[in-house]
Amino acid sequence: MTDVDAASLADRIATMPPAPSRAFASDNAAGALPQVLDALVAANHGHALAYGADRWTQEAEARFRDLFGADTLSFLTLNGTGANVMALATMVQPGDGVVCSELAHINVDETGAPERIIGAKLLPQPSVDGKLHPDQLAALAHLQGVQHHSQPGVVSITQSTELGALYTPDEVAALCETAHRMGMIVHMDGARIANATAALGGTVAAMRSFTVDAGVDVLSFGGAKAGLAFGEAVVYLEPTLAKRAMYVRKQVNQLSSKMRFVAAQFNALLHDELWIRSAEHANAMTSRLYRLTEELPTVVFADEPRVNSVFPSLPPAMIEPLREWCFFWDWDVSKAQVRWMTSWDTTVDDVERFAAGVRHLVDVH
Amino acid sequence: MTDVDAASLADRIATMPPAPSRAFASDNAAGALPQVLDALVAANHGHALAYGADRWTQEAEARFRDLFGADTLSFLTLNGTGANVMALATMVQPGDGVVCSELAHINVDETGAPERIIGAKLLPQPSVDGKLHPDQLAALAHLQGVQHHSQPGVVSITQSTELGALYTPDEVAALCETAHRMGMIVHMDGARIANATAALGGTVAAMRSFTVDAGVDVLSFGGAKAGLAFGEAVVYLEPTLAKRAMYVRKQVNQLSSKMRFVAAQFNALLHDELWIRSAEHANAMTSRLYRLTEELPTVVFADEPRVNSVFPSLPPAMIEPLREWCFFWDWDVSKAQVRWMTSWDTTVDDVERFAAGVRHLVDVH
Amino acid sequence: MTDVDAASLADRIATMPPAPSRAFASDNAAGALPQVLDALVAANHGHALAYGADRWTQEAEARFRDLFGADTLSFLTLNGTGANVMALATMVQPGDGVVCSELAHINVDETGAPERIIGAKLLPQPSVDGKLHPDQLAALAHLQGVQHHSQPGVVSITQSTELGALYTPDEVAALCETAHRMGMIVHMDGARIANATAALGGTVAAMRSFTVDAGVDVLSFGGAKAGLAFGEAVVYLEPTLAKRAMYVRKQVNQLSSKMRFVAAQFNALLHDELWIRSAEHANAMTSRLYRLTEELPTVVFADEPRVNSVFPSLPPAMIEPLREWCFFWDWDVSKAQVRWMTSWDTTVDDVERFAAGVRHLVDVH
Amino acid sequence: MTDVDAASLADRIATMPPAPSRAFASDNAAGALPQVLDALVAANHGHALAYGADRWTQEAEARFRDLFGADTLSFLTLNGTGANVMALATMVQPGDGVVCSELAHINVDETGAPERIIGAKLLPQPSVDGKLHPDQLAALAHLQGVQHHSQPGVVSITQSTELGALYTPDEVAALCETAHRMGMIVHMDGARIANATAALGGTVAAMRSFTVDAGVDVLSFGGAKAGLAFGEAVVYLEPTLAKRAMYVRKQVNQLSSKMRFVAAQFNALLHDELWIRSAEHANAMTSRLYRLTEELPTVVFADEPRVNSVFPSLPPAMIEPLREWCFFWDWDVSKAQVRWMTSWDTTVDDVERFAAGVRHLVDVH
Repeated sequence: MTDVDAASLADRIATMPPAPSRAFASDNAAGALPQVLDALVAANHGHALAYGADRWTQEAEARFRDLFGADTLSFLTLNGTGANVMALATMVQPGDGVVCSELAHINVDETGAPERIIGAKLLPQPSVDGKLHPDQLAALAHLQGVQHHSQPGVVSITQSTELGALYTPDEVAALCETAHRMGMIVHMDGARIANATAALGGTVAAMRSFTVDAGVDVLSFGGAKAGLAFGEAVVYLEPTLAKRAMYVRKQVNQLSSKMRFVAAQFNALLHDELWIRSAEHANAMTSRLYRLTEELPTVVFADEPRVNSVFPSLPPAMIEPLREWCFFWDWDVSKAQVRWMTSWDTTVDDVERFAAGVRHLVDVH
Repeated sequence: MTDVDAASLADRIATMPPAPSRAFASDNAAGALPQVLDALVAANHGHALAYGADRWTQEAEARFRDLFGADTLSFLTLNGTGANVMALATMVQPGDGVVCSELAHINVDETGAPERIIGAKLLPQPSVDGKLHPDQLAALAHLQGVQHHSQPGVVSITQSTELGALYTPDEVAALCETAHRMGMIVHMDGARIANATAALGGTVAAMRSFTVDAGVDVLSFGGAKAGLAFGEAVVYLEPTLAKRAMYVRKQVNQLSSKMRFVAAQFNALLHDELWIRSAEHANAMTSRLYRLTEELPTVVFADEPRVNSVFPSLPPAMIEPLREWCFFWDWDVSKAQVRWMTSWDTTVDDVERFAAGVRHLVDVH
Repeated sequence: MTDVDAASLADRIATMPPAPSRAFASDNAAGALPQVLDALVAANHGHALAYGADRWTQEAEARFRDLFGADTLSFLTLNGTGANVMALATMVQPGDGVVCSELAHINVDETGAPERIIGAKLLPQPSVDGKLHPDQLAALAHLQGVQHHSQPGVVSITQSTELGALYTPDEVAALCETAHRMGMIVHMDGARIANATAALGGTVAAMRSFTVDAGVDVLSFGGAKAGLAFGEAVVYLEPTLAKRAMYVRKQVNQLSSKMRFVAAQFNALLHDELWIRSAEHANAMTSRLYRLTEELPTVVFADEPRVNSVFPSLPPAMIEPLREWCFFWDWDVSKAQVRWMTSWDTTVDDVERFAAGVRHLVDVH
Repeated sequence: MTDVDAASLADRIATMPPAPSRAFASDNAAGALPQVLDALVAANHGHALAYGADRWTQEAEARFRDLFGADTLSFLTLNGTGANVMALATMVQPGDGVVCSELAHINVDETGAPERIIGAKLLPQPSVDGKLHPDQLAALAHLQGVQHHSQPGVVSITQSTELGALYTPDEVAALCETAHRMGMIVHMDGARIANATAALGGTVAAMRSFTVDAGVDVLSFGGAKAGLAFGEAVVYLEPTLAKRAMYVRKQVNQLSSKMRFVAAQFNALLHDELWIRSAEHANAMTSRLYRLTEELPTVVFADEPRVNSVFPSLPPAMIEPLREWCFFWDWDVSKAQVRWMTSWDTTVDDVERFAAGVRHLVDVH
């Protein structure tokens, strides 16, 4: 952009094409899927006992067993931080720490909720894409058995990661194998497990391959980013870890009184693989946006997107004008890196308009 | 019931009249008010930035300022335990305990969430109806300044109480005056503040008289029991206490990502005093049920109901048959005491059918 | 005292006999036993690895195994609240509460340390002498399995109690039997276990009869009140509960760096039953004080003392003059009840002088 | 060492010179200073009220006021982790995190005690020598005011650092200035403040220059590493932060019952600058060891030592034989880096013997 003078920039700003109907801020800026909201409305009929003693919750629990196995146990929760905190609170032993990527949501974006509520130290490991590697676990062996150090007792991985990276089933299995061999157990933050599933085969079998089949012990199954108005679930793939889950859910403020309204949404989301189909669409919209902008010389992508987000670096002067035209979030200001994210309701028209605006503003003519 | 033999009882059970459409279990067994659900559905339009940066949340915050005063600050939350925990977490100083009635929801029904998350001791006081009295606070003065004792730093009262009792505005003011004079601050758990408001005048002014005007510092404003699908609010009547509220809300798992869906519900609930009108109806239904059963010699009421619940003692042998016919919860098994509770959607027909069933089963002919 | 006028009282105060050399405030107002201090001094020789990797600690651990059994495990700690907190922190499961007497030190005198550090609710039960009874545990069964309630998971009893009462071995065994049958485990706060042992037989076998033989799972073994300068121990009679003890000790600030100075004291205290002999002396001094004052009509004892404290009620006007002459603490101001406590170094002369002063001041001539 | 074959190594091991009387493991492997132990013994006379209401504690508090200023407030504690946890627990606001070096004792060596007890996230920053820099604080400004992030509210620095580095008074002042400007407050972990004082001038004025004069708010003042048997202190240089300190000390298990035994030790340590003189000696012994070994080509020092520790890298094959001959700890196994540390009782003879052994074993002839 060194050859774009201020006058030229002002001119481009003044002549931006029509903006998209939806911004590229986040998948949680989208509303709820129509089928989900219809189900929520339909559940508003008559009385149902509170706190999960209702038929919608029974159905949701059955649907999760269908997904993950007859022995697994699921607990509906209210939000994502709550699901992670609940899961980890049932997994740590006294003295344990939680190994995670330094970029993990639990480390960066939960205001210390894990430390406050679980009372456990996080043990963040360096990562460029949000993924952990087995050798990072192995390197913590020297902490084990030493009374002065938080014990690496739980590993938490995110699928897909906060940077849109994916673990293959084999990579998850290798992490779980190393963790289990070291006496650790494995949590997966699946806030975007739908996007990961869509990217890794688009089937329930694919999803099982990188969760229950790979050895993950406890899963936070994302609802809001997949298209619910609200609601997540904690799924105990290793059911013996669920012994105290019911009490912990209440303790960490995640027990809904009128739980049918969470459950009914999940029942719609999990019906006919709506969660996978919706995520496939969101992923495809990011892929399309990438293809429409990748060749621009001033828009630098680290990687081809795998799920529903890309993290380009842009000419710094362009960022604010582009954001004012159509909102998105910064990712790493020091690198002029931003995040563009799509959702279940992003349209082809939204993407094409956004790409046109980017091209208009940042392209060197 | 000593003169009712088993054959007679079996006969009565076999000949119960038609059951009500709705049980008398709890106000959180009811669904959402139609206006509330319509507003939730209407909010599902387009994108809105997450975590409260949306126009529905701005409107809800304005509505709470209209209710409580321009200087007050409100924060929407996800559930009632979470609202209480969030409020208290912003109120306690290190070393403080929370004075409450031994019957308080925070003491009995939150699985130790306050202790776990706030790390503060509760200091429960004896109570027959869930109310605290100023002399109970005064009697704690000997703890103050002694390093071995949790300091009575926060008082938490419930309006209306877990047993359906009400503080008058003067009673709240006296508690606040004593608390403030002793250097304590006052939280009100208003999970059923709508029912209390309806019972104490049915106007916003009435509600202000026992909250902000009486000196309450922080209020948990109930949503679910008043007719939301989900959602509560923490209102800082003393706004200086809100300095860390935003961070604490996230820490205690109470920050909704798609917050518009909480806010839109509140906007409908607070519109045209829907919350007060709905609670007046619920209260009236309990009152009607009381009048239809009070004269039964075997149904013993401690007090005339003030809000939407009564706690009669019944002939023990009658309880299970009655519950199987139309569900309600036990209160104190040792006294054969049960709780009958009405909600915004309880109908006159429900009440009359239920009273007829009670009369059929328990009356001594 | 209604017939003692102010002039007479002033006259008595002016003519008090010589005061004792030691007050009757507390056993922790006494210093350390000479043998204990000699051992501490003798340990100050050369270098020793920190944090317990020293020969004094090895010896102390062996001495505790000699006391309680070859399979038991002990951990030295720094103070009594810390020992209790450490013990309980290794015993609770997520969601658990700790059942205790309402008079328990952990409930009344630890500034909420258990709640803060363990994050668990205490479930205090009514008690007149600090003892719990099996039926109080049984009455909590209705909480078990209900997600809204802290689960009664650990019982903590104090031997001897804060009011100087004793559990017989059978009583402890009955509590443990009930607790274990209900799925709970049992902690004993033995801050004054030496006094209890002295009172219940004065032998190691006696001590075992109400601890390891009775089914207690984890014991806080008191050091300071028994004659150490500082130091306590947590003894895992059920060794499987010790799995995380080493980490928890560090987490709760109870790991001493120069641990030989704790261990050497314990080695002296446990040598030749010094702890039992010293406690027998302390108990005998209280017993003597009781016998010298029990017949005074205005000094009202609830019970004959069993260990090293009595709790008489005195004529209110006499309390401050007596305290100024020789210090002791109030117990229950509302009943003009005070506590007189003896220690390992209280002499017969101290007791006789104190009794003479009491007689001089409170006796009705 | 590539030219030293195994036979040669075995020969060297077999012919080691006489080992030192004291190892080079840690300053907490040393015992107590004779003057300190004499004072502890002298305090064992008669009764003294517990929990700090004694004349030794009054004297210690006066001595700390003499050191730091008449407005400052000190609280004696039991161990170093406890002092740090207590200090931080009185400094954090809800939602705060604690900024520290990634090498800080609170981050690495306290088993997550800060997270467990304070419930706050640590925000560790990269560091090669354990020091923080003002630009690292400034770079955290983007976290401030964002509800998703732990708020950088407290900075904790260590003087001297865990790697033996020193902050100059100007460096501390610059950190404090930046922190205060950003609304943060500053804790100093002074577990080895005596060594730092000795190195930075050897006077009380020097110590003040990098603590109270530089703007530090709360200080953990080290006792054990300076020559106590046990005991540390938390000094509130900003006394308004001490409002809840008394309660927090009890809550975090740091209140000694027989506190005279902590206080008497401090009174001896602080008398006639014994703490500075002893640390000067310890520092000098490390300096001497460095000078005797720095020229060895296979012993690689990163820096000249400033206080009482050096961290050389050694030929890997030499480490275990040398350690078996005279103990010391590894520092970073991946770099064959070890730590040699001296203490108040290390003698010139110890150093010369140790250096001779090192030379014998690792020197290339």
